[in-house]
Amino acid sequence: MSLERIEHRACFGGWQDVYRHRSTVLDSTMNFAVYLPPQAAQSRLPVLYWLSGLTCNEQNFITKAGAQRYAAEHGVILVAPDTSPRGDDVADAEGYDLGKGAGFYLNATQAPWASHYRMHDYIVDELPALIEAELAASDVRAISGHSMGGHGALSIALRNPGRYRSASAFSPIVAPSQVPWGQKAFTAYLGEDRQAWKAWDTVELIASAREHLPLRVDQGEADEFLREQLRPELLQAACERVGHPLDLRLHAGYDHSYYFIASFIGEHVAWHAQHLR
Amino acid sequence: MSLERIEHRACFGGWQDVYRHRSTVLDSTMNFAVYLPPQAAQSRLPVLYWLSGLTCNEQNFITKAGAQRYAAEHGVILVAPDTSPRGDDVADAEGYDLGKGAGFYLNATQAPWASHYRMHDYIVDELPALIEAELAASDVRAISGHSMGGHGALSIALRNPGRYRSASAFSPIVAPSQVPWGQKAFTAYLGEDRQAWKAWDTVELIASAREHLPLRVDQGEADEFLREQLRPELLQAACERVGHPLDLRLHAGYDHSYYFIASFIGEHVAWHAQHLR
Repeated sequence: MSLERIEHRACFGGWQDVYRHRSTVLDSTMNFAVYLPPQAAQSRLPVLYWLSGLTCNEQNFITKAGAQRYAAEHGVILVAPDTSPRGDDVADAEGYDLGKGAGFYLNATQAPWASHYRMHDYIVDELPALIEAELAASDVRAISGHSMGGHGALSIALRNPGRYRSASAFSPIVAPSQVPWGQKAFTAYLGEDRQAWKAWDTVELIASAREHLPLRVDQGEADEFLREQLRPELLQAACERVGHPLDLRLHAGYDHSYYFIASFIGEHVAWHAQHLR
Repeated sequence: MSLERIEHRACFGGWQDVYRHRSTVLDSTMNFAVYLPPQAAQSRLPVLYWLSGLTCNEQNFITKAGAQRYAAEHGVILVAPDTSPRGDDVADAEGYDLGKGAGFYLNATQAPWASHYRMHDYIVDELPALIEAELAASDVRAISGHSMGGHGALSIALRNPGRYRSASAFSPIVAPSQVPWGQKAFTAYLGEDRQAWKAWDTVELIASAREHLPLRVDQGEADEFLREQLRPELLQAACERVGHPLDLRLHAGYDHSYYFIASFIGEHVAWHAQHLR
């Protein structure tokens, strides 16, 4: 498998790179971003995967979050993949919340999506295998994300016990089966049978989690999507029902933007770094 | 004079805002960005003006530099204006390095530019007057910028002794009269008479500076524009000739991008904060 490095920029003593490769799982040419902190020149480092939200690609997090400073401080590699398969042969839809830029980090089962939209397997298997083989990355992993990517981070960590030391999210969609963004995407990607949705829904997955995963969620109280799409109280209630730990932090005044992420990403990187040790 | 707030986002305990107003000096409707750190709720604070480079508007610095964290730490307001007048009636040119997005922070004297392109007076007079009247800003000022904006910061501070406590720049155009970007812009905005260019050229202004201004310049050694357009050695030689202090720092590996700015903006904000006390 060949990796082409298409960006390479010094940043906080390390390197902010972007790679392009052909994904077998997605049958698509994909970009992903990697921040290699200065410590990567000496040893293999743990990796924090970042999953972005609707409309994003691999650029948003690396240009707007300011996370590299903290990754350099803690000796953690950051990996930020794209949010969907790409290319002229990949199915798409009207609207920003389905199709390209909106893969929802699941494996689609329905036409026309099933042939390319397998972001779960790409994030969980193919991408880490590549990164751990080709870069200075160990197999010690954590995962985080924003909005749709917060859904991705939490659901992926819960579906794959033992694979991630910790999972966190900013403004996540915690109950896609119960909110418009999730219902639209799940109907298209997974079909009408709501039973099949449960395997991709954080609130449902918490109910059946066998192990306790360190979980942190930050949510802005001025988030324009809070009440209709995000509904962190559903995650809080689900965790309370089964006694699953959850560090849910509400922040007065903060909205859904990268200014919110930038304000608290340092605390997330530090928290993951503790678990990655 | 009326200010319309068009963005208002919580960020590091303060507010990242964008305002729109009608500029008399530019005869143009302008956006500018303001970061108000949490301390602005209690008292008037000093202001660090940031001048962006070619092609930028008021958004680039606030979304990509990660400077808000440091402004909150030091209690400094950040103001990031646009890089030229805007609007359908404003003259423009082919190419990214003349016209809109490329005002060069001077007062144009030539047609068709002279009627709107007066960015010097806007930055030095109209904008601070507005900010100091309408926001929690004191009249204690510092100035910084990148590339064309580095030229702007240094030349503006040198032209206006006493008005800024300190001036710094990332990857500045220090000798516009001697490099292609500057020669193209100065010919258009100021005309063929090179004598008139001297009043807008940092290397020329240093030679006649009556006061010593605290000056810091950071430059990446992998900057793709270093040898043809930026030429910091000309500034270094000019400062040495007249004994003007200059803290010029060269950084191996760093390029012209915001990843370079993000890596060192914290040190610039801390340095300006010392002078702003």
